[in-house]
Amino acid sequence: MANESDTVVAEAERDDAYVLDRKAVSQILYAVDVEDRDQLVTLMEPLHAADIADLLEQVNAFDRMRLIRLYGQEFDGDILSELDETLREEVIGILRPEVLAEAVRELDSDDVVDLIEDLGDTERDAILGALEAGDRAAVQQSLSYPEFSAGRLMQREVVMAPEHWNVGDAIDYMRNADHLPEQFYHIVLVDPKLRPVANVTLGRLMASRRDVLLRSIAEETFHTIPATRDEGEVAYAFNQYHLISAPVVDENERLVGMITIDDAMAVLDEENEEDILRLAGVDEESRLSDTVVDTTKRRFPWLAVNLVTAVMASLVIAQFEAAIAQVVALAVLMPIVASMGGNAGTQSLTVAVRALATKDLTGANVWRVVRREVAVGLVNGIAFAIIMSIVGIVWFGSLALGGVIAAAMIINLVVAGLAGIVIPVALEKLGVDPALASGAFVTTVTDVVGFFAFLGLAVIVLL
Amino acid sequence: MANESDTVVAEAERDDAYVLDRKAVSQILYAVDVEDRDQLVTLMEPLHAADIADLLEQVNAFDRMRLIRLYGQEFDGDILSELDETLREEVIGILRPEVLAEAVRELDSDDVVDLIEDLGDTERDAILGALEAGDRAAVQQSLSYPEFSAGRLMQREVVMAPEHWNVGDAIDYMRNADHLPEQFYHIVLVDPKLRPVANVTLGRLMASRRDVLLRSIAEETFHTIPATRDEGEVAYAFNQYHLISAPVVDENERLVGMITIDDAMAVLDEENEEDILRLAGVDEESRLSDTVVDTTKRRFPWLAVNLVTAVMASLVIAQFEAAIAQVVALAVLMPIVASMGGNAGTQSLTVAVRALATKDLTGANVWRVVRREVAVGLVNGIAFAIIMSIVGIVWFGSLALGGVIAAAMIINLVVAGLAGIVIPVALEKLGVDPALASGAFVTTVTDVVGFFAFLGLAVIVLL
Repeated sequence: MANESDTVVAEAERDDAYVLDRKAVSQILYAVDVEDRDQLVTLMEPLHAADIADLLEQVNAFDRMRLIRLYGQEFDGDILSELDETLREEVIGILRPEVLAEAVRELDSDDVVDLIEDLGDTERDAILGALEAGDRAAVQQSLSYPEFSAGRLMQREVVMAPEHWNVGDAIDYMRNADHLPEQFYHIVLVDPKLRPVANVTLGRLMASRRDVLLRSIAEETFHTIPATRDEGEVAYAFNQYHLISAPVVDENERLVGMITIDDAMAVLDEENEEDILRLAGVDEESRLSDTVVDTTKRRFPWLAVNLVTAVMASLVIAQFEAAIAQVVALAVLMPIVASMGGNAGTQSLTVAVRALATKDLTGANVWRVVRREVAVGLVNGIAFAIIMSIVGIVWFGSLALGGVIAAAMIINLVVAGLAGIVIPVALEKLGVDPALASGAFVTTVTDVVGFFAFLGLAVIVLL
Repeated sequence: MANESDTVVAEAERDDAYVLDRKAVSQILYAVDVEDRDQLVTLMEPLHAADIADLLEQVNAFDRMRLIRLYGQEFDGDILSELDETLREEVIGILRPEVLAEAVRELDSDDVVDLIEDLGDTERDAILGALEAGDRAAVQQSLSYPEFSAGRLMQREVVMAPEHWNVGDAIDYMRNADHLPEQFYHIVLVDPKLRPVANVTLGRLMASRRDVLLRSIAEETFHTIPATRDEGEVAYAFNQYHLISAPVVDENERLVGMITIDDAMAVLDEENEEDILRLAGVDEESRLSDTVVDTTKRRFPWLAVNLVTAVMASLVIAQFEAAIAQVVALAVLMPIVASMGGNAGTQSLTVAVRALATKDLTGANVWRVVRREVAVGLVNGIAFAIIMSIVGIVWFGSLALGGVIAAAMIINLVVAGLAGIVIPVALEKLGVDPALASGAFVTTVTDVVGFFAFLGLAVIVLL
C-alpha cells in the first residue's frame, strides 16, 4: 500500500515499462559496495519480490552474495519463489538458517513445493525442517505426485461448500472461517463424497440474494483436473477455457486442491520458452546466469549432433569429387540449394511443432496440412527455381547448370515441406517432444537431398 | 452445469486430454453430410465455444460453411471470439444477419472490440449496428485507442468504490447493483477524481467484518496500466507480478477500464507464438487454416532473404574457385564449418531474443553476457576443432587440412557467439523486433565468415 500513485506516474513516464532501471541497479550495488545497509533496504523497499529476483539474476555471483548478506533479515520468501531454479541452491546456501526458516514459513504450500522440488537433500531438509508440522505434511503429500503434475502445481487451501447450500450459508461460513486462503476466486461445491460438482464465483455470490441456491448460480464451464495430469495440459486447459481456478481431484474424484490461473500462466510461459529454446537446439534449462562452463556443456550436445549431420552431408558431396573437380561452379552453387531447403524445412517444422503444442494439428486435419505443405514447397520451389536458373545462366553462362539448380531447388523444397511436417508428427506419435529433435532430422534430410539432387543431376546433365 | 461428472470421468480416462476427439469430429461431419440438425445440435451441445472454434478451424472451408448453416440459430457469440482472426471474416459472411446480431449482443465489450478490430468495413458495420447504443459507444471508445494497446484489451465494466468506504458499504452496494460484470475479482478503490488507488480482492472482503475499512485490506501489490501501454508489456506485468486484474487509466490517471488475467494470458501466449514463428522465418499471422496460396505468399519473403544471404556466401566461395579446383576436399569440408557456425549462432541469438523478451537481458548485464557467449564459442570451438582436425587427418590424410579446418572452426564459433548476441541487442536498440530479423543477419555472418576463414586459410597453408 506504500506508494501507488508515485509508481503509477513513474511507470507512465518510462518508455520501457517494467525493465529494471539501470540507475537503480547501480545505486543498489553502490550501497552494497559501501556496506550501507539502511540505504540498501530503502532502495529495495519499493521493489516487488519478482524484481528483486531479477536483480539477483542479473548481477554476478560475488555481488549476489554480498547483497544477500547485507540485506539479511529483510530477505523475503517470495524472492526465493520468484528466483530462477538454477540460482536457488546458491542463494539458499548464502542465507543464514534463521532467515531461511522465516522466509519459508511465509509461503503458500504450492510455492514451497515449487521451491524445494529441484533442491539437493541438504537444502530440502533445511526447508522442510523450518515448516510447521501441518504445512510440512501438506508439502510432502504434494511431493508424492509426479514431477510436472497438477498435484505439484496445486495449492492445498480450498474454500468448499456442500452442493445444497444457499448464498447465505456460504457467506456466513466464510465470515466465520478462521483462515481463508490468500488467493481464491471461487467456492467449490462438493457432493457428500467430497467430489467437486461446480464452481461459484465470488462475484456472482456477492450479487445474489441470500436465499438463492449456490447450484443455480454456478459457472457454466467447469473442469476438474486429475492430480496426475501434466502441468502443460493444465495450462492449456486454463488458456483454452478461460478458467480462473479449477479444483484438483485424486483417483477417486475427490477434491485434494486447487490450481489458480497465475500458476497456469507461469507454466504456459515456461512451456513456450522450452519450445523456443529446444527448437534452436538450446537446453531448456539454460539461464542467462549460467557460467561459461555450464553454458558450454549445455550447448555442446546439440552442436555435436549437428556435426554428425554436417559430416553426413559432406559424405554425399565426397561422392561427387570428380564432378566438382571438372566443374568448380558446382561447389559454388551447391550450398544455395541445401540452405534454401533447410530454411523451408524449418518453416514447415516450426508451424507443425507449434500446431501440435496448441492441439491444432490433429488426426482430423493432418493429411490436409501435409498436402498443403507439399503444395507450398512445390510452388515456392518453382518460383525460386526460376530465379536461380536465371542467376545460374547469368553468372556461369550455362543453360544446363541453370536447369540443374532449378530442378534441384524444386525437389529440395518439396522434400523440405514434406519432412518438415511428417517428422514432427511422427516424433509426437512416438512420444518424443517434436521441438527437441525435429530440427536435426529435417536439416539432415534437406542437406542430404539438396546436395545429392544438385550434384547427381549435374553429373547426369553436365558430364 | 450440464454434465460435470461425466466430463470428469471421460477426461481422466483419455490419455490425450483436451484434444478434439477424432470420432466426435467424424460424427459431427456425418450429421452435416446427412443434414441431421437435431443430431448436430446434440453432438455440439457438450462442446465449449473454444472447442467448436477449433473444430471449425480444422475442417475444410466447404464443411465449415455447411456446418455453420445447419447449426443456424445455435451459433454463439463466444465461438466467434474464440475463432482465429483469419477465419472470422469468412464465418461472419456465412452467418445470417439475425444470427450474427444475436451472437454479438451476448459478448462483453472487450470481446466485441477484439472481434471487430481486424474486420473489413462491411462486417464491422454489421456488428456495430447489432449492438445497443450504450455498448456501441463503449466499443467505439475502446477502438479509439491504438491497436495492441491496453485500451483495446480492457473491459469497460469495473466495480469501484470510494476509498473511504468500509466492507459493509461495499457489500450493500454490490447487493443492490443492477448489473455487475460477468467477471470481476477485485473492487477498485478510487479517489474523488476517479483515480484508482488500491485493489481489494473479493476473498478478503468476504472474510472481513463489515466495519473494516477497505483501504486496510487492500492488496500489497497494486499496478495501474496506462490505456496506451502495449499489450505485450501488460501481459509481462501480469506474469511478473501475479496480477489477477488491474485497472486501466487514461492520461489523467482516471479509471477507464479493467484488464483481467485470462486476457493477459492469451496475449502472452500470442506474443510467444509470434516469437517462435518469427525466429523460424514464418509470418506470425500464419495459420494452419491458411490456403496454399496464402501460405506460399507468407513463406516466400523469408526464403527470398535467405536466397540473398546464400548467394552472398556463394560469392565468397567463388573467390576461391582456383583453390577448390586444386584441392577438391575443400568443397567437401567447407559446409561443415559454415553449418556449425550457423547452429552456434542460432543458439546464442535464441537465448538473447528470449532474454530480451523477458527483460532478463538489460544494460546491467549485457557485457557480461557478451563475454560469456564469446567464451562459450571459444571453448566449444576448440573442442570441435580437435574433433574436426582428427576427422580431416583420418579422412583426407592431411595434417595441414586438419589444422585449417580446426582454426576456421574456432574463428567461426567465436564470431557466431558474438554475432548471436550483439545483433539482436542492436536490433532491439534500433526498435526492430530482434526475433524478426536476427536470424538472417547471424546466418549471413556465420556463412560468410565460415567459408572465408576456411578457404582463406586453406589458400595460405595448403597452396
